[in-house]
Amino acid sequence: MSTNLDAALVRIPRPRAEAAREAGRLLDAKTKPKGSLGRLEELACRLAAIRGEVPDGPLPPAIVVAAADHGVAGEGVSPYAQAVTGQMLANFASGGAAVSVLTREAGARLVVIDAGVVDPPRVEGVRAAIRNGIRGSGNITHGAAMPHSITVALIEGGIALAEELAADGIAIVGVGDMGIANTTAASAVCAALLPADPSDVCGPGTGLDASGVSRKVEVVRAALRVNGLDGDRGASSDPVDVLAAVGGLEIAFLTGVMLGAASRRVPVLLDGFVTGASALVAAGLAPDVTGSMIAATRSPEPGHRFVLERLGLVPLLDLGLRLGEGSGAALALPWVRAAVAILTDMATFEAAGVSRA
Amino acid sequence: MSTNLDAALVRIPRPRAEAAREAGRLLDAKTKPKGSLGRLEELACRLAAIRGEVPDGPLPPAIVVAAADHGVAGEGVSPYAQAVTGQMLANFASGGAAVSVLTREAGARLVVIDAGVVDPPRVEGVRAAIRNGIRGSGNITHGAAMPHSITVALIEGGIALAEELAADGIAIVGVGDMGIANTTAASAVCAALLPADPSDVCGPGTGLDASGVSRKVEVVRAALRVNGLDGDRGASSDPVDVLAAVGGLEIAFLTGVMLGAASRRVPVLLDGFVTGASALVAAGLAPDVTGSMIAATRSPEPGHRFVLERLGLVPLLDLGLRLGEGSGAALALPWVRAAVAILTDMATFEAAGVSRA
Repeated sequence: MSTNLDAALVRIPRPRAEAAREAGRLLDAKTKPKGSLGRLEELACRLAAIRGEVPDGPLPPAIVVAAADHGVAGEGVSPYAQAVTGQMLANFASGGAAVSVLTREAGARLVVIDAGVVDPPRVEGVRAAIRNGIRGSGNITHGAAMPHSITVALIEGGIALAEELAADGIAIVGVGDMGIANTTAASAVCAALLPADPSDVCGPGTGLDASGVSRKVEVVRAALRVNGLDGDRGASSDPVDVLAAVGGLEIAFLTGVMLGAASRRVPVLLDGFVTGASALVAAGLAPDVTGSMIAATRSPEPGHRFVLERLGLVPLLDLGLRLGEGSGAALALPWVRAAVAILTDMATFEAAGVSRA
Repeated sequence: MSTNLDAALVRIPRPRAEAAREAGRLLDAKTKPKGSLGRLEELACRLAAIRGEVPDGPLPPAIVVAAADHGVAGEGVSPYAQAVTGQMLANFASGGAAVSVLTREAGARLVVIDAGVVDPPRVEGVRAAIRNGIRGSGNITHGAAMPHSITVALIEGGIALAEELAADGIAIVGVGDMGIANTTAASAVCAALLPADPSDVCGPGTGLDASGVSRKVEVVRAALRVNGLDGDRGASSDPVDVLAAVGGLEIAFLTGVMLGAASRRVPVLLDGFVTGASALVAAGLAPDVTGSMIAATRSPEPGHRFVLERLGLVPLLDLGLRLGEGSGAALALPWVRAAVAILTDMATFEAAGVSRA
């Protein structure tokens, strides 16, 4: 591991319980029965704990969507052609994708990252994750996804981006992924780290039928075996090694975004299954990072349940979203805004002249 | 029943399935795997069906919150004093209540209705539901909540308000309630109309303990018996008679808002348990009205589950909200906006140059 990454891991703070209690006291003074706004109140308290203080105004939001290609796409684990990753990267930047629309609706900044697509689009508004990256990961059924050095560089690139956003005033970051075949890589990472049998974590992704899912299970099984991560061997490995072996470029980058945001007390809104895999890696590197995470959505991918359990998170939404891109994180942003607004804008019983129970 | 109410019932249109199919075709051409935005896509199709055409831009939203007092508050079924209803009405109008804050965040218009509070506040921005209304309903354990004529006038007042909002360009209406002891009246209405035993529908409301809930069950049981609605007698009664016997002034008014909105093809976002009771009455009068309803939230009140099943609705949110006021409806508005935005603003595969599966 590198010095920069080590330094970031040391900086991950724990949530401040006292700030959550202060938020709870403020909420209990507002004109409503105690706790009657349910999970919105929990969210307000969690935001306070992560930030270390009660928010006194809206938290400027950003969504970071990172895209990369995956050599394992060659194993027929997605109904889409690999070229779609680069095409969608262009679509993110030009504003036509779901995450573009939903981020705009939420009044958030969209940061579009090329973490390593094979055929990068020539459009404005796409940032490279790192200098001298690679164009697509290797086929994980034949060997490692990427060199260890690239994996570390991508994590550090994500950390640097999160620190840059925090310095620029961004106070909540949603994360999203794009990459044809990336639920296969994410399944392999989760199967290794949990550990779990591939048949318990693999699902239809963007649209496999039952036989496609069976094939995906065998692909993940092969990837774990070839990379020496089958059985319990993944769970006792260094998470960066697992990421380098069976992960993906965007999964590595987003792991870094999570670590960097947590180090600056910026809450991280997880999206679906693929960002869940990044979160597992981050939690393996720095267990306290989960304290900065908020799960936006529950994915229909079967592995997501185990990931959320391991992270100790209960999602805000359960709407059957299975798009990724950060679309679920963007859809949860209005609630983050609402949770802060009830803290900052609601009247107290005293101010409004309303009698308490 | 009156001629105006009869006329409104005749005008309730059914959802247009062809508009939902057209919305589905549009969504399938957008740059995302089919159906991958889950319930957001269902919501987009349902909005199209209710309106009778695919929305071509944001639907201007309003939240109607109606407040009234309940004579049954004298039975000790709420930890709050009756005076709180009028105090909260003032708080709604002056912008400090949860629904005020959440409606503002959602960019919606808030319409604050005095459907009959005992001590009306002297503030700007509160509208009377009807002329010559009554100040609070009667104690339903002693007799009827309100005269039949007042009940019909309130429903008609709600219809008139919804028609006025529709004429003014409002294209989606969320409904909310306020009234100390009104979950007791709502429980009585639901127990009568479903029918169900009071012990199956009564819950803690804004904060009763177990012995308080037991007391509430006995109060509802007494109310049904005194008004001749116990056993199966409520289910075979005219819904307006049930409303007049054991309902409440705001429950009647909101029933009218639902009927009026449906008659103008304006989708209605239900809030929690009390607006669910209004919806049951509306559905009893005009079964097709449920086609215009969208359930925003699942209430922890035990009766809400049965109400939603009867209405055939699955809520968008499950956040443990138990405030009422329309707070849940306001929290669902960003998703309505998002559902329309994916229809109107996302790029198609063709336009974005993205290859299909």
